[in-house]
Amino acid sequence: MRLSRYFLPVLKETPAEAQIVSHRLMLRAGMIKQASAGNYSWLPLGYRVLKKVERIVHEEQVRAGHIPLLMPTLQSADLWRESGRYDAYGPEMLRIRDRHDRDMLYGPTNEEMITDIFRSYVNSYRDLPLTLYHIQWKFRDEVRPRFGVMRGREFLMKDGYNFDLSKEAALHAYNRHLVSYLRTYERMGLQAIPMRADSGPIGGDDTHEFLVLAETGESEVFYDSEITDLKFGDREIDYGSVEQCQAVLEEFTSRYARTDETHDPALFDQIPEARRRVARGIEVGQIFYFGTKYSEPMGATVQTAEGGKVPVHMGSHGIGVSRLVGALIEANHDENGIIWPEGVTPFPCGIVNLRQGDGETDAACERLYAALTKAGLEPLYDDRDERAGAKFATMDLIGLPWRLTVGPRGLKNGVVELTSRRSGASEELAPEDAVARLQEIYAPHRALSASVPLPV
Amino acid sequence: MRLSRYFLPVLKETPAEAQIVSHRLMLRAGMIKQASAGNYSWLPLGYRVLKKVERIVHEEQVRAGHIPLLMPTLQSADLWRESGRYDAYGPEMLRIRDRHDRDMLYGPTNEEMITDIFRSYVNSYRDLPLTLYHIQWKFRDEVRPRFGVMRGREFLMKDGYNFDLSKEAALHAYNRHLVSYLRTYERMGLQAIPMRADSGPIGGDDTHEFLVLAETGESEVFYDSEITDLKFGDREIDYGSVEQCQAVLEEFTSRYARTDETHDPALFDQIPEARRRVARGIEVGQIFYFGTKYSEPMGATVQTAEGGKVPVHMGSHGIGVSRLVGALIEANHDENGIIWPEGVTPFPCGIVNLRQGDGETDAACERLYAALTKAGLEPLYDDRDERAGAKFATMDLIGLPWRLTVGPRGLKNGVVELTSRRSGASEELAPEDAVARLQEIYAPHRALSASVPLPV
Repeated sequence: MRLSRYFLPVLKETPAEAQIVSHRLMLRAGMIKQASAGNYSWLPLGYRVLKKVERIVHEEQVRAGHIPLLMPTLQSADLWRESGRYDAYGPEMLRIRDRHDRDMLYGPTNEEMITDIFRSYVNSYRDLPLTLYHIQWKFRDEVRPRFGVMRGREFLMKDGYNFDLSKEAALHAYNRHLVSYLRTYERMGLQAIPMRADSGPIGGDDTHEFLVLAETGESEVFYDSEITDLKFGDREIDYGSVEQCQAVLEEFTSRYARTDETHDPALFDQIPEARRRVARGIEVGQIFYFGTKYSEPMGATVQTAEGGKVPVHMGSHGIGVSRLVGALIEANHDENGIIWPEGVTPFPCGIVNLRQGDGETDAACERLYAALTKAGLEPLYDDRDERAGAKFATMDLIGLPWRLTVGPRGLKNGVVELTSRRSGASEELAPEDAVARLQEIYAPHRALSASVPLPV
Repeated sequence: MRLSRYFLPVLKETPAEAQIVSHRLMLRAGMIKQASAGNYSWLPLGYRVLKKVERIVHEEQVRAGHIPLLMPTLQSADLWRESGRYDAYGPEMLRIRDRHDRDMLYGPTNEEMITDIFRSYVNSYRDLPLTLYHIQWKFRDEVRPRFGVMRGREFLMKDGYNFDLSKEAALHAYNRHLVSYLRTYERMGLQAIPMRADSGPIGGDDTHEFLVLAETGESEVFYDSEITDLKFGDREIDYGSVEQCQAVLEEFTSRYARTDETHDPALFDQIPEARRRVARGIEVGQIFYFGTKYSEPMGATVQTAEGGKVPVHMGSHGIGVSRLVGALIEANHDENGIIWPEGVTPFPCGIVNLRQGDGETDAACERLYAALTKAGLEPLYDDRDERAGAKFATMDLIGLPWRLTVGPRGLKNGVVELTSRRSGASEELAPEDAVARLQEIYAPHRALSASVPLPV
């Protein structure tokens, strides 16, 4: 993409309304624009990041054997009356009346609707296990929306629902989700710690929240410092294996890690003092097992092998897709702007032309642009007639992890400069070597994408 | 995907509520489920088609140089008061009041919001031309929703908006959209005819609707039969060239083609009688030029080269993404079910195992499955323990364009059968030749996707 033809409205001033760094940087980098309280338009750069995050979530869900579908944003109130949640859910539910005076609502979550889909078609234990998920816009009418996309009203969420014959099978689905979430966050360059949590309006006994440590997090968290040394890494996992998934759950949840809602000071004090940590965290996902809470009142039953009828065991599992974009910035920035991890960067690299209009420099940039695009690494090419300083400042602000700087002096020696946004380190390379180097850097990310059939 | 692990709830009976064939087939093939009046859940198979259609639309928009972003589904009423449409828009607009008693609405279209984005950031003629688009869920509170996703309430639409300095420049954007739409529909295997139309609540003088001929279409259409011989084909086009885009517009719109809203019997009668056609059509897109209708009241102006300030010239351009899924079926089916064009099929091919449980047949199917998946052509493998007839009926119903039939008799001769859903013709091929053949069939579709950098 050529910057001269792009729509990247970066701001010089720091917007006064933004209280936290991710909100400030998303506004300054031209990623979002507030449309109304708590509702945002995703401008082109922000949209690219949102789609990258969404894609990783899709890929890891499909890898775990979960099946994508898509439910509408608006729901009929009748379904929620069946579960009893229509009256129980507070003012955060946006209630709507259509032209025929029917009660509807903008879905804040989809337990009822997915249970209705299940009960409409599935009757036999033979069709289990089944996990369906979607990534769809939700709405929660927050009384005080703030922190940009971190606590907005309209937000993009992946919510998945498992249907199993027994509690044991459903707990395996729970563990499978935990594993897939660990992989998902790590691919984005994030460490999200599973913490024992409170189930809130979803219900159920077993639940973990995934928290990214950040000073601006809304939750106070308490954990054993050993937990931050754990990495899922590139280990192979068989999602069908109860033992393997259970082992990962145990590895990642056996140490103390709780939010303030479930914090137990007595237990916490049993950790050696040097390992006790109190910090703040951003919730980026949550998994629940809630048994037959919805299947029983809504009649989602299956025939067993023995001929009886039993309500299915369910759980629901969410990842805050739009919120993750904010969380990623909270965890990856410096005083000059955003520092995108390679997995989610809107463009793999930027090209800065130090002397726009100079025939040789322009031609070298065009060749790089074409070579990178051909290699599937579409760069953002700053081809504006601007000072080098302004171009560098824009690149730093929007946070592309790699910058190629092209100028007459380097070209005389046959080199361009490849600079890491994170470390600031630069290296002079022949243009073709720079392309090869970037291909190498992005190869692991592309391999992960290629190793799962596209979800769509 | 293995059918035994998929969620494909096909129905044996024809649902009574469905009046048109696409609605019936989408229900029977397990593509959609009604969630409430006019609102549908896209079950896994339907979701895949929806995403394929969406992806082609994205690719052709990006190819034309248009920039994707994403606006929220809910909008503030204030913006619509600025343009005067809040009161003018009828009961099809879903009006919502939030917990703070603020008037909101579920966007039926986005002229106001995109104009607000534009005026917030763009001040100079230097930043023009600019075309922004998004693909987002919309809502129109139809008084009688019917025909499934063809006239639903919540629907997925691509809407794009061009901002130009002059009427001439805006008409080039109009023509560019017309060209990109022709390409878009043809990639899906659809012929959509641009017809002079009425602008309705969007406003403006220049507008064309794109109609797919189908007996069940809601519009009566009148056209010169020569128009159906036109093909955009694989011609190269420079979207920056005013002449090239203008020439395509003239080629495709110079013959008589109008909907009943703009039909002129006197003009129609000038066509030689043998070429006069009266038929029915489904609207799958519309383009508008409306000048300064929104930019003037909303103050979307730019500084000109001469220093003055002028309101920008705009147009808006829509493609009915979810509606296209229905239109595709109306145009591609027979008495046994759907016949997907290769460009939009949910799976490139199906594998039917004629003797599930037979070691050799199972192994041959698994090898085919792996080879096709590796080639990027993930098949739907019917690995259920069912009669061949039932498996064939399911494949015919869901309409995958190619079926591989694998059985002990063929395997004895080293062959499997490749059958075209459309022609019914079969061919016996060595398994590796069948894979190669499918790769060849899908190569043009993949080349079209690969020739544009991914939009996201």
